[in-house]
Amino acid sequence: MIKLLTVFCHRKNFRDKMLHKIINLTVRDVRFPTSLDQHGSDAMHTDPDYSAAYVVLDTDSGLTGFGLTFTLGKGTEIVVCAVEALARLVVGKCLQEIVSDFRGFYRLLTSDSQMRWLGPEKGVIHLATAAVLNAVWDLWARTEGKPLWKLLVDMEPKQLVSCIDFRYITDVLTEEEALGQIKDQMQKEGYPAYTTSCAWLGYPDEQLKQLCTDALKSGWTRFKVKVGADLEDDVRRCRIIRQMIGPDNTLMIDANQRWDVAEAISWVSKLAEFRPLWIEEPTSPDDILGHAAISKALAPLGIGVATGEQCQNRVMFKQFLQASALQFVQIDSCRLGSVNENLAVLLMAHKFNVPVCPHAGGVGLCELVQHLILFDYICVSADLRNRMCEYVDHLHEHFTCPVVIQDAHYMPPKDPGYSCEMLESTVIQHRNPIIENLKHESYEHVTH
Amino acid sequence: MIKLLTVFCHRKNFRDKMLHKIINLTVRDVRFPTSLDQHGSDAMHTDPDYSAAYVVLDTDSGLTGFGLTFTLGKGTEIVVCAVEALARLVVGKCLQEIVSDFRGFYRLLTSDSQMRWLGPEKGVIHLATAAVLNAVWDLWARTEGKPLWKLLVDMEPKQLVSCIDFRYITDVLTEEEALGQIKDQMQKEGYPAYTTSCAWLGYPDEQLKQLCTDALKSGWTRFKVKVGADLEDDVRRCRIIRQMIGPDNTLMIDANQRWDVAEAISWVSKLAEFRPLWIEEPTSPDDILGHAAISKALAPLGIGVATGEQCQNRVMFKQFLQASALQFVQIDSCRLGSVNENLAVLLMAHKFNVPVCPHAGGVGLCELVQHLILFDYICVSADLRNRMCEYVDHLHEHFTCPVVIQDAHYMPPKDPGYSCEMLESTVIQHRNPIIENLKHESYEHVTH
Repeated sequence: MIKLLTVFCHRKNFRDKMLHKIINLTVRDVRFPTSLDQHGSDAMHTDPDYSAAYVVLDTDSGLTGFGLTFTLGKGTEIVVCAVEALARLVVGKCLQEIVSDFRGFYRLLTSDSQMRWLGPEKGVIHLATAAVLNAVWDLWARTEGKPLWKLLVDMEPKQLVSCIDFRYITDVLTEEEALGQIKDQMQKEGYPAYTTSCAWLGYPDEQLKQLCTDALKSGWTRFKVKVGADLEDDVRRCRIIRQMIGPDNTLMIDANQRWDVAEAISWVSKLAEFRPLWIEEPTSPDDILGHAAISKALAPLGIGVATGEQCQNRVMFKQFLQASALQFVQIDSCRLGSVNENLAVLLMAHKFNVPVCPHAGGVGLCELVQHLILFDYICVSADLRNRMCEYVDHLHEHFTCPVVIQDAHYMPPKDPGYSCEMLESTVIQHRNPIIENLKHESYEHVTH
Repeated sequence: MIKLLTVFCHRKNFRDKMLHKIINLTVRDVRFPTSLDQHGSDAMHTDPDYSAAYVVLDTDSGLTGFGLTFTLGKGTEIVVCAVEALARLVVGKCLQEIVSDFRGFYRLLTSDSQMRWLGPEKGVIHLATAAVLNAVWDLWARTEGKPLWKLLVDMEPKQLVSCIDFRYITDVLTEEEALGQIKDQMQKEGYPAYTTSCAWLGYPDEQLKQLCTDALKSGWTRFKVKVGADLEDDVRRCRIIRQMIGPDNTLMIDANQRWDVAEAISWVSKLAEFRPLWIEEPTSPDDILGHAAISKALAPLGIGVATGEQCQNRVMFKQFLQASALQFVQIDSCRLGSVNENLAVLLMAHKFNVPVCPHAGGVGLCELVQHLILFDYICVSADLRNRMCEYVDHLHEHFTCPVVIQDAHYMPPKDPGYSCEMLESTVIQHRNPIIENLKHESYEHVTH
């Protein structure tokens, strides 16, 4: 098979010298000790070390693609191992060959006859798929000399839709319908953001107040608070934040899956006086009907339900929308199957008229998802009501093209690619060589 | 932490010499080239190599626990890597300490603050959890000198229920309710089985006829046929089988997730003339609402919907039951979190009055699941109507205590444990040393 592809690439080479054949895939386990200062702490994840399985694709043209998936520390080596297992499906392929049938390539990765048993399309194997495909999209955008959002915006709707695997979602969205939903209009404004940086669960009240004061000074108007470990604590912390930000700014609360269904309803009802716009992840990310019950119970209180950062794939998002189980769709650039699967979710959310407010933070998630939300605004929703993108101000300094936030807005990135290239010095310093399996680190394509 | 546990074990040692401290965990990648003869082939998995991540727990008492999770070949090394990541939570613990708070131990494995991001409770990390916990249950049964089903049947209902993590399912089943559902009655009969061995998708018609003839002679009365790749083929194959088995025997069909929702309804309607009892896995295993739509559409045709072998956890099963999305619950001993999570599903199925017909086959799945279905019959359902357990006659020769089938019934296993110990010669012969990461293979507990 590899030999055939090589022949195919060679033959096409006569017509086009820049096929960008992928000759090497490297994956590294990069970890940041964020738990030391309780950054990122919530009711279920008390000590996360923001980490990534970081993928680099080298091509014969000299261009390189960078991708990652986000993790919380321990176990990143499992995702690394999964990326290594996918590498054989990628190395040796030409970029043009991939993007000319991107749906086919997506399915090649997600529906391998033997490997799909490990998911399908969920958990470790899907996180690995995201890391690999994020690197492919980055490479593609770089070959076009465009930031990823611009690559998407400039693309023919037909080609865009051809990147989506519609398997299992045609009862809600067909290819023809999807085509009709993509707009051609074009705008260039910053995209509104909200901050989660002020109120991690492990922060003491004084730190919380100081961070709130600073954020208000920097123009932030929307704030998210972690809740769910202790009700009295939550009441106190929400009260502090609401007092700090005043009645007109926006407050959201996030339980990170801490509760069962009845518990969620009763707990959130007791926080209703602080007028949160949404409760995020009230229960298991798998519980569509549970979220529907919570949504129904909280609607009279004016509180919506948001979820998605651990929503495993488009099939689950489809059902959340069908069941009116969420009022805010929180796509994630690293849990879903990269841009391809996020396109499907953006289009379904639009069909159901539910606003998309992406999950970000972690490491690299802000850099990645800003591209998707810009595309959503320009080509799909054209609407900013109840729409905003999460922002957390950690670890951006490790990227070659970090996000730019001005007056609480994401400014559109200008550099070519998908913005997730890390500084090589960072990768060397934060690499986890003890656990990482060095001998399998790099795959060379041996048939030339 | 490990030091503390050691002290704890030492102190308890004065009262009880047999704490069975786990001093070593070994995991190996074992693969069988079943794809060579098209065994196991279906519409989505065209060339499976039945494989396992095979776990051995050594204790200081000399007793050993054996567990596995089933895979289809490629990627097994990822599950091995995940088992290695879980090993640190197991090695150094005493069995008595684990089983005296089994719910706590279950949650330790499934809700690690950093590792749960990789699931939670789904995909690779949950398969690894199953392998580890299957070995713990095997060890427990061996320390009691009982086959696992007998350990379960003899257990106080209160202790049984204390093994279940009720998080996220209390809206359907509480601990108190679960207690009320466990019966004390006791029966000892074989458990009815059905066979999938006659009609894998890749078998030619002559082979299918011959296998059918042989199976009828051996007393089989229930047969499953793989469908979904080509409608004409399916019609022909179903017609052959129905003619071979006659009007009174039972036929089931299995599409292995091949279709979208509308496609499933239309395709199965065209096979209705062959009167299948159920259509298995008509679409994505994640699509609860899709299965509900299919169930509703096929009910007038007298065809039920069965699913579960790729149902990721108890939260999904809960919703399948809530939404009347299945009429047959197919638990799996290796995808769910071992006995603990299967207990939760058996009890929920009983509450909804839906029969349980386990998934088996693969490698080791028949050996494992026979224990669960015996327990279900004796202590929960006490009912055989529409109940039967899948059987596939491959690879049993590799186990020290293989299943015994008599007249198409599973005969209750008598040897202590959970029946998944492989012959050491098999493990050596079928081990995958190229991919397996030898240097991480074995975890020694270093603090003594």
